[in-house]
Amino acid sequence: MAAPDDARHLASWNDGPATASIREFVARVTTDGSPDFVPPEERVAVFDNDGTLWCEKPMPIQLDFILRRLAVMAEEDPSLRERQPWQAAYTQDFGWLGQVVAKHYHGDDSELPVLAAGVLQAFGGITVEDFEAQADTFLRDTQHPTLGRGYLACAYTPMVELLRYLEAKGFANYIASGGGRDFMRPISQEVYGIPRQRVIGSSTALDWEPGEPGGRIVRKPEADVLDDGPAKPVRIWSRVGRRPILAAGNSNGDIPMLQFARGPSRPGLRLLVLHDDPEREFDYTAGA
Amino acid sequence: MAAPDDARHLASWNDGPATASIREFVARVTTDGSPDFVPPEERVAVFDNDGTLWCEKPMPIQLDFILRRLAVMAEEDPSLRERQPWQAAYTQDFGWLGQVVAKHYHGDDSELPVLAAGVLQAFGGITVEDFEAQADTFLRDTQHPTLGRGYLACAYTPMVELLRYLEAKGFANYIASGGGRDFMRPISQEVYGIPRQRVIGSSTALDWEPGEPGGRIVRKPEADVLDDGPAKPVRIWSRVGRRPILAAGNSNGDIPMLQFARGPSRPGLRLLVLHDDPEREFDYTAGA
Repeated sequence: MAAPDDARHLASWNDGPATASIREFVARVTTDGSPDFVPPEERVAVFDNDGTLWCEKPMPIQLDFILRRLAVMAEEDPSLRERQPWQAAYTQDFGWLGQVVAKHYHGDDSELPVLAAGVLQAFGGITVEDFEAQADTFLRDTQHPTLGRGYLACAYTPMVELLRYLEAKGFANYIASGGGRDFMRPISQEVYGIPRQRVIGSSTALDWEPGEPGGRIVRKPEADVLDDGPAKPVRIWSRVGRRPILAAGNSNGDIPMLQFARGPSRPGLRLLVLHDDPEREFDYTAGA
Repeated sequence: MAAPDDARHLASWNDGPATASIREFVARVTTDGSPDFVPPEERVAVFDNDGTLWCEKPMPIQLDFILRRLAVMAEEDPSLRERQPWQAAYTQDFGWLGQVVAKHYHGDDSELPVLAAGVLQAFGGITVEDFEAQADTFLRDTQHPTLGRGYLACAYTPMVELLRYLEAKGFANYIASGGGRDFMRPISQEVYGIPRQRVIGSSTALDWEPGEPGGRIVRKPEADVLDDGPAKPVRIWSRVGRRPILAAGNSNGDIPMLQFARGPSRPGLRLLVLHDDPEREFDYTAGA
C-alpha cells in the first residue's frame, strides 16, 4: 500500500499500471517490517540519461555540443572540411551523423570509429576543468533545435518527479549513461538532484600531469570506456559496489542494466521509457 | 582557531605541529565567512589504506589473503608447487614475496607480473559476491602474524579518529588505495565509517554474464587498473568529479595524490604517515 503522503509525488504521472507499479514497489521496499524491506543504504536506483531522463532527438544533446566544436575546428583549419566527421559538422550534414548513430543502435559500429576519432580529437589535451566549463556553458546557453526551449529544460518532468520521489524515500539515484560522464556532471545536481559523484557514464582516457599547484588532469585523445550494453552493470558495480534495485532505460544498450537490477534474493523494478508523444516530444522506437 | 568542541576529537593525537595543522586547516575551510571556506559538498578527503589507515607489515593484509588462497590451490594441484608464486605461498617463502614488493616500491616491476598472474588466477571466474564473501570472512577471522590481534583491529586509532573528526566537520572521506577495491569494501563502513561507494582502489577486469535473475558479474583473470602513482589522481577524479582538499598517504605511490590535493584556487592539506614506532607497530621508511 502506498503511504498517503505519496500523492504529492509523481504529480504529472497518469493513474495507470506504471504509476501503480512504482508506488507499490517503493512501498514494499521502504516499509519497515515488509518482507521485501531494503535498508536505505542499499536502495540504489540507476537511470540511463539520453532518452530516459532527457530528450535525445533529433540528436543526443552531447552530439550537438561535439558538432559545434568540430565546426569551429573546421572553421579554423580548412583541411579538416574534406574529412569526416568535420565535413558533416561544418556542412551541417546531419544525415551522415544520424545514420552512424542509427547503425550503432542496430549493432553495426562500422562507422563509429570515424566519428569517435574526431570526437576524441575535439577535446584532446585540455584539462578536465576546461572541458567541464565548456560543457556547462553549452548546456546553459544553447536552445534545443525544435522544442523551443534551452537544453537544460529538456529533462522530462515525470522522470524528474520520479527521481525526487525516490530521493524522498531514501534512494540514492545514479545516472548510468552511455553519454559522457564529464559532460553531464556540471548540471546533474541542478537538473536531477544527482550529485556529480553519482554520475556514471562513458569516459575518455585521462592523464595526470605533475606541477604546482596540484598538478592537472588532462583529457587524452583516446577512448576509455563506452558505458553501454554489458559495460553498464560492470560500471555500476565498480562505482557503487551494490546491485541496484531499480533501473530505468529506453534503448537496447540498457537491457543488461535493466536485467542487473534484480538480485537472486532481492526485489527489483525495471522501467522502460517508450517515446510515443509526437506532440510534446518525439515518437520513435529505433534502437529501443 | 579551532572550535571548542574540537577537543573531543583526535583524542589520541599528541599536541604537536601535525595536530595543530589539521585543526587549523579544518577550522579554516569549515568556518562560514572564512576567506578559505569550502562548502560541504566540496570537502573531499582521500586516504591511502595500506600503511596509512591500517598496518602493512610484515606484509600487506591483502597479500596474506592471496597467499592463503594460492597455498590452497597448490594443496589441491601439486604441479603448482614448483611454480611461483604458488611455490612461495605453499612453502611460506616470504623472502621471495617480500623482495617483489620491495622492488616495486623502488620502481622495479620486473617480477611483479609473475606475482600478478598468480593473483589474477587465484580469484578468476568467481562472482564479485563470492569474492566479497571470501574477503569478508578472511578479514574477520584472521589474526595479524605478530601484533596479537585480528586484522580488523589493525586500523590505526589516530587515523580512525581523524576520519571521524573530518566526517563530523562535513567532509566526505574516500579510500584511494593501491590495494584491491573489492577487498576493502566489505569492511570499510565498519572499520572506517567509509561507505563502499567511496572505496577507490585497484581493480580486476569484470564481465557481466546475462541470466535470470539479474545476471552476474564475474572476475576475469586480467588486471584492470593498478591504483598507484599517477593513477591515483585520475581514479579520484573519475569517481568523485572533484579535486580533494585533503590527502593522506605514506609511500612513494601516494605522491601524485598528495600533490593533487591542492587546487589553483583552493587550500589543501597533505598528510604523510611516518612509521617510527617499533614498540607498538613497525619502524620503516622503505618505499616511503
